[in-house]
Amino acid sequence: MTFDMLASFRSDLPAASGTWQPPPEYSFVGGHNDAASVPFSGLAEALVNALRREGSNLAYYNLGGSPLGYRPLREFVASQLGARAGIQGGPDQVLMVSGSLQALDLVNNAMLTPGDTVLVEQATYGGMVSRIERMGVNHVGIELDNGGIVLDHLRSVLDELRTQDISPRYLYTIPTVQNPTGSVMPLDRRRALLGLAREYSLPIFEDECYADLTWGCERPLSLRALDGDGGQVIYCGSFSKSIAPALRVGYVIADEPVIRQLLALKTDAGTGSLEQLALAEYCPSNFTEHVDRLMYTLRTKADAMVAAVRSEFGDNVQVTEPMGGIYVWLTFPAGTNTDALALAANQAGIEFNPGSGWSSDHEWGKRRLRLCFGAPDLDTIRGGVAALAQVYRASL
Amino acid sequence: MTFDMLASFRSDLPAASGTWQPPPEYSFVGGHNDAASVPFSGLAEALVNALRREGSNLAYYNLGGSPLGYRPLREFVASQLGARAGIQGGPDQVLMVSGSLQALDLVNNAMLTPGDTVLVEQATYGGMVSRIERMGVNHVGIELDNGGIVLDHLRSVLDELRTQDISPRYLYTIPTVQNPTGSVMPLDRRRALLGLAREYSLPIFEDECYADLTWGCERPLSLRALDGDGGQVIYCGSFSKSIAPALRVGYVIADEPVIRQLLALKTDAGTGSLEQLALAEYCPSNFTEHVDRLMYTLRTKADAMVAAVRSEFGDNVQVTEPMGGIYVWLTFPAGTNTDALALAANQAGIEFNPGSGWSSDHEWGKRRLRLCFGAPDLDTIRGGVAALAQVYRASL
Repeated sequence: MTFDMLASFRSDLPAASGTWQPPPEYSFVGGHNDAASVPFSGLAEALVNALRREGSNLAYYNLGGSPLGYRPLREFVASQLGARAGIQGGPDQVLMVSGSLQALDLVNNAMLTPGDTVLVEQATYGGMVSRIERMGVNHVGIELDNGGIVLDHLRSVLDELRTQDISPRYLYTIPTVQNPTGSVMPLDRRRALLGLAREYSLPIFEDECYADLTWGCERPLSLRALDGDGGQVIYCGSFSKSIAPALRVGYVIADEPVIRQLLALKTDAGTGSLEQLALAEYCPSNFTEHVDRLMYTLRTKADAMVAAVRSEFGDNVQVTEPMGGIYVWLTFPAGTNTDALALAANQAGIEFNPGSGWSSDHEWGKRRLRLCFGAPDLDTIRGGVAALAQVYRASL
Repeated sequence: MTFDMLASFRSDLPAASGTWQPPPEYSFVGGHNDAASVPFSGLAEALVNALRREGSNLAYYNLGGSPLGYRPLREFVASQLGARAGIQGGPDQVLMVSGSLQALDLVNNAMLTPGDTVLVEQATYGGMVSRIERMGVNHVGIELDNGGIVLDHLRSVLDELRTQDISPRYLYTIPTVQNPTGSVMPLDRRRALLGLAREYSLPIFEDECYADLTWGCERPLSLRALDGDGGQVIYCGSFSKSIAPALRVGYVIADEPVIRQLLALKTDAGTGSLEQLALAEYCPSNFTEHVDRLMYTLRTKADAMVAAVRSEFGDNVQVTEPMGGIYVWLTFPAGTNTDALALAANQAGIEFNPGSGWSSDHEWGKRRLRLCFGAPDLDTIRGGVAALAQVYRASL
């Protein structure tokens, strides 16, 4: 190169990506799922049927329909997925997006300006933490217990911020199969949380990406469902966890004026049509049965991982059985640094998510880590946890 | 609603989207294509084959491979599409994106800061103009003739900006099947443009979205091809125009360090896998033949539209036969306001793109408009142009 293109780039960009490497022997990171459970034959058959019927509509952006997304899929989300979460509403309250990460970007773009403050759970989705920090927005973590957000702490944070004249732009919460703790907030606490949000005029951004995979209890009504016509909650969900991560299809459910404002920011000329067609054709008659089968598999893996952690690490490490999803959250004794542990583990062919990236307070997160069990098989789970325990003991 | 969510949104957002309406009788807007030419059976068959072979990889983000995109598709782009554009290089110089609009967003995000200046063609892609304006970035239009950018004007603009101590961040150019003029820049001017860019250290962002549909001349080498190892050009292309608009798959070709920096900004957890699998399986043996057939159809439509414009509007309106693509660009007598004409046309069931949105100087664009002919059939083209001429005459 004679011209240095990178010198023309902004100076405040995140570091360039490295060269991709295949995962190590024991990979416990990411939202990957059980390969044997992906319904690829059913999706293929569904897509062939859908294309036979209306394949020529691929000639039009949005298949010739609304930019909100393929209407039969929005109808499925509004009726059947809405029903699972208890949400009333029609397809015009649904915006299909290119993965729920786009939902995060649209809401953040609509609501946040550098210097703003948002509230998150003290342990929360790492991709949201990095997005918020990249936007120059402050985040304050709210304490969690086994039922999710501790409301007394939320109130005290809101009061403290009020004395500083700060109105948080929203509360980002994952009440059902919390990421990374795996907890489910009980119904009464949801009602109380909503009451508190109303009292403080605090918008709620509810992420239910893993909620279709709830097995530890009956799935409670979502905050959006409990809010009814209150207008306090923007909801998002995804097909990545329930059907396949490589599909990039998620959705936002909100009141129509909110949906239309978010749509004005969605300038990608539509979400992928093959994926929307396949899902719209496959899901109405297959979603429930598929998810039930998938949950059985995931629960078996979860049990194996929790048992392996307890047996290999003993009482020193806390782990709670997740109520669903694909991960467990480990808490180590004070003084543990899981960032350092991750480096040592990588040498032994093990990868996990250090808690610092999955926490609003990176220091608080340093004695914690997330282990994903969706993709590895039972032997890999057991072997990997044993290998990790060995690395951990060697670090003491 | 008891809570006003929109009051919590930023105050500087674009207006909310209206309720979607189906297109009118004579729709000449958008990148839609010929419905009968979409190879949906071939895509379906290809996808079934690909899923049978590696469907279980849908359980992994990026199908378990590089976040640059599905490797067989990157290989197709690098070898066969690169060959059409004359570009040397391998799959690691290719980043698959969710439609070429994401390429625009990634490059803009990497290179632009509010207050910056970029150079565009005086008539250019409307989606780029709106993006630049939304970012608070200035754009300066460079004059066009039948061979594209007028180099003397480019030099004078660069000199003038230099006196103001302004370094434009890049030149955005569509040299092949220019959008909206339909021109193709000849090879010697491309070489001279590249020389000028080198002289002024001006990065080039080359958009070749329509270049696979060049029929009016032999397709020239792209600027990126002519640049060789020079590092001066970031290139983007798309499958939207050649295969189907509803597929959201495009690509960036650039030097590896540039690709890896753009990848660091691509935080969408990958581009849709069904679409990448289908294209990677379909294209290697079918792309060329399909595109040749499609071009025959489009050329027939283009000829019909040019003939209709000449016959209905006479000498008052300038139209040039496009060298490819799906649109023609009309220039009306001084004083015409195509924004007003669009409103009157809408009443008559006709829609087109007024030139103000497709021009760097919105006033300059007001006597111009873009008519797309990819989707409508021959009768609609003829009937719509006649109806538009009637509306135009009534406006005089």
